[in-house]
Amino acid sequence: MTQGLIDQLKSTVGPTNVLVDGDLSAYELDWRKRSRGKALAVVRPGNTEEVAAVVKACADSGVSIVTQGGNTGLVGGSIPDESGQQVVLSLQRMTTVRSIDAANLTMTVDAGCILQTLQDSAEKAGFLFPLSLAAEGSCSIGGNLATNAGGTQVVRYGNARDLCLGLEVVTAQGDVWQGLSGLRKDNTGYDLRDLFVGSEGTLGVITAATLKLYPLPAAKLTAWAAVPSMQHAVTLLGLAHKHLGAGLTGFEVIGQFALSLVAKHYPQQRVPLWQDAPYCVLLENSDHESEAHAREQFERLLETAFEDGCVSDAVVAENLTQANQLWHIRESIPLAQAEEGLNIKHDISIAVSRIPEFVATTDALLEAAIPGVRLVNFGHLGDGNLHYNVQAPAEGDSKAFLRDREAEVNTIVYDSVARFDGSISAEHGVGSLKLDKLEHHKSPVAMGMMRAIKQALDPHNTMNPGRVFRV
Amino acid sequence: MTQGLIDQLKSTVGPTNVLVDGDLSAYELDWRKRSRGKALAVVRPGNTEEVAAVVKACADSGVSIVTQGGNTGLVGGSIPDESGQQVVLSLQRMTTVRSIDAANLTMTVDAGCILQTLQDSAEKAGFLFPLSLAAEGSCSIGGNLATNAGGTQVVRYGNARDLCLGLEVVTAQGDVWQGLSGLRKDNTGYDLRDLFVGSEGTLGVITAATLKLYPLPAAKLTAWAAVPSMQHAVTLLGLAHKHLGAGLTGFEVIGQFALSLVAKHYPQQRVPLWQDAPYCVLLENSDHESEAHAREQFERLLETAFEDGCVSDAVVAENLTQANQLWHIRESIPLAQAEEGLNIKHDISIAVSRIPEFVATTDALLEAAIPGVRLVNFGHLGDGNLHYNVQAPAEGDSKAFLRDREAEVNTIVYDSVARFDGSISAEHGVGSLKLDKLEHHKSPVAMGMMRAIKQALDPHNTMNPGRVFRV
Repeated sequence: MTQGLIDQLKSTVGPTNVLVDGDLSAYELDWRKRSRGKALAVVRPGNTEEVAAVVKACADSGVSIVTQGGNTGLVGGSIPDESGQQVVLSLQRMTTVRSIDAANLTMTVDAGCILQTLQDSAEKAGFLFPLSLAAEGSCSIGGNLATNAGGTQVVRYGNARDLCLGLEVVTAQGDVWQGLSGLRKDNTGYDLRDLFVGSEGTLGVITAATLKLYPLPAAKLTAWAAVPSMQHAVTLLGLAHKHLGAGLTGFEVIGQFALSLVAKHYPQQRVPLWQDAPYCVLLENSDHESEAHAREQFERLLETAFEDGCVSDAVVAENLTQANQLWHIRESIPLAQAEEGLNIKHDISIAVSRIPEFVATTDALLEAAIPGVRLVNFGHLGDGNLHYNVQAPAEGDSKAFLRDREAEVNTIVYDSVARFDGSISAEHGVGSLKLDKLEHHKSPVAMGMMRAIKQALDPHNTMNPGRVFRV
Repeated sequence: MTQGLIDQLKSTVGPTNVLVDGDLSAYELDWRKRSRGKALAVVRPGNTEEVAAVVKACADSGVSIVTQGGNTGLVGGSIPDESGQQVVLSLQRMTTVRSIDAANLTMTVDAGCILQTLQDSAEKAGFLFPLSLAAEGSCSIGGNLATNAGGTQVVRYGNARDLCLGLEVVTAQGDVWQGLSGLRKDNTGYDLRDLFVGSEGTLGVITAATLKLYPLPAAKLTAWAAVPSMQHAVTLLGLAHKHLGAGLTGFEVIGQFALSLVAKHYPQQRVPLWQDAPYCVLLENSDHESEAHAREQFERLLETAFEDGCVSDAVVAENLTQANQLWHIRESIPLAQAEEGLNIKHDISIAVSRIPEFVATTDALLEAAIPGVRLVNFGHLGDGNLHYNVQAPAEGDSKAFLRDREAEVNTIVYDSVARFDGSISAEHGVGSLKLDKLEHHKSPVAMGMMRAIKQALDPHNTMNPGRVFRV
């Protein structure tokens, strides 16, 4: 039976594109190297018709499918389980930029395209594709859409969902839904696009997408500001919205301890201002006029912020190199954390207005439970999204800390998130990692509707089963 | 049985809020006065709990529900059918602005709130709620969300869906789904919000929403430009995106014949430039700096456009009164059309890049089929959305024209839309008016998924049955 399916898959996509032997780590091991599955086979179709044929063949055999793009997910949603009975459907051969429509401000691309390739293709055509995140050199747009990826420019351009105008999808039955029209308005029935976006491969396979493009900004400026408290960071955000309007394309907050780790482990990076304030803020201003105009706007904003007392010190990058250095500090936090030892990561969101109180409350709860605990708090404050990570006390054994305290820490953090009406997964998704937590925190009415939809579109539960929720 | 239900509804919402006698035209007659239904009763709950109780009572009796806001829909989706067996659930008593969260840039409101009230409440708090459309003085935000309304600022701010961060919904089973968290990022499962938005009351009842706010622009300027062709209008749109960036908040195109009708029936409006060009474009520039800056931006754009030959003449409004006069011309087109006689309306969308060819092709097809036919073509070109309306030949009897030629005209227009991969309903929805057309034009795969979702969430088909599609 299984051999029959594998033979059928080989005849569909070619024998070299069905991998069963050898080292399949690239497909079976998750990005954070925390879990590993075992695939029945890794199948790499070359086009949508082949994807449909693979899905049909698997459906006929009752074999379930785990769709995989760049395999850079952080919640264990893109690797197979340990049964050795799931097919990994890799889209890594489907990398064509199908078309760029300048007048419609859209591009249509295969789901396997690497995000950075899309950014580059758009730029070459004179446009911006604004989705931007740490894994952009490896992640695929299909994975970005399946997990509704966020990143650093959400404050202006929204999440992956907001950047998508249409999809091509292979359904659980192996039919092709063609929704690549590139329309900005289309009120002809239910929003199937947004249902597939963020469904983490549990409803079908995204094979292509039509994405929004924006005119390339004439200039992009970066500033780094020390703020006296998280509340002042929130006030600064309001001022930035007012002064920069849609020019505000990035607003990141970084806690002092997170910066101290970068300063300690990467002293060559010369982190500015971190010793003077509990938080620093990284701001980006994209301007469609000129660099001079962007600078003038930034200066006016910072003047007001100084007068209001919500910024104690600030620097504006003089050139692109300096701007990249500032962003590099931000991007180095996860690595600096790893250098310091294992830690417990969270990807949470709260209404922006409630973040100061959330942080004060949750910091206190953790400090009471774990004396000396160290909090690596940073994130996309513009979207209310914090990577609120918990590091072992300075003298502790971080391995033991993770083993002994992870469950307790997660409970403290997620219960606090729930009290502040927040989300336990802001931009990473649920995957297999947060399955049980979701069941606990999401309302039964919402879970019931989600299960009914899953049952309706994938009645035999063959699309990435056991991810997001158990049926 | 029926009397039992009515008594139960009276005890739930109070006897004065269950209307069964007298003139119920306001609830039974559609906005365009083209069709009229007959309600079993009109029920007006005062809060979400009452809505839930009404839905449960109706579900227990197997009675179906038509949810109604301002009853300003254009596709017959918010009035009952003729059976006299459907309950109209009117949300007109639920009009509370529940809260405004300035730091989170959100407002949470009851679904029955009138759109204009929301705009005013936001403005009073120093913010912009950018949804704006002709019926804003009467339509409710619940209806706007149920139909994913568009309007004149979509080019910058998106449709109603894009302006909504969360919903409170009463499901078909009478349960309350509470999704009003106001989060800008939340990847914990399927996107239920966007499924209810645009579902036209067929899946549940939207009872409240959390909406996005924006800083109020410092200035808003309007310009009116004559363009030599539709292709030149598209080129101008590209220039406007580049020069104004996110400042471009309106881009409307209006055909010469549409303007001639306004000039003829409302000569006091003094329509500018219409005699010189086949199309005029209405542009709006919202600026977060100052009016002077907005004007300078506009002037630079228009200079470039003159040099490029895509604008032959233009005026920039000197003040708010002049700007309002220009917008008033645009808003007067439907009335001027009605003065001229009955006509056949379409609300279509096409990729912006393909609109010039679509218009040329479809104009020619109609002129060949109906010598002397007159085309009232205007719309939101920035979103690829045209109100491509067809008026009887000058000397014809418009009543007879509508009776004899409507089906033929619709077929010509919608078949042409299909050839250009467009949508037969850009911003008005499907309702009962476009039911059969949708079945013909939407892919069977999409229709199949929509039916499966309906069956999953409303298995007894009691929520606005016979709208969007027949189950």
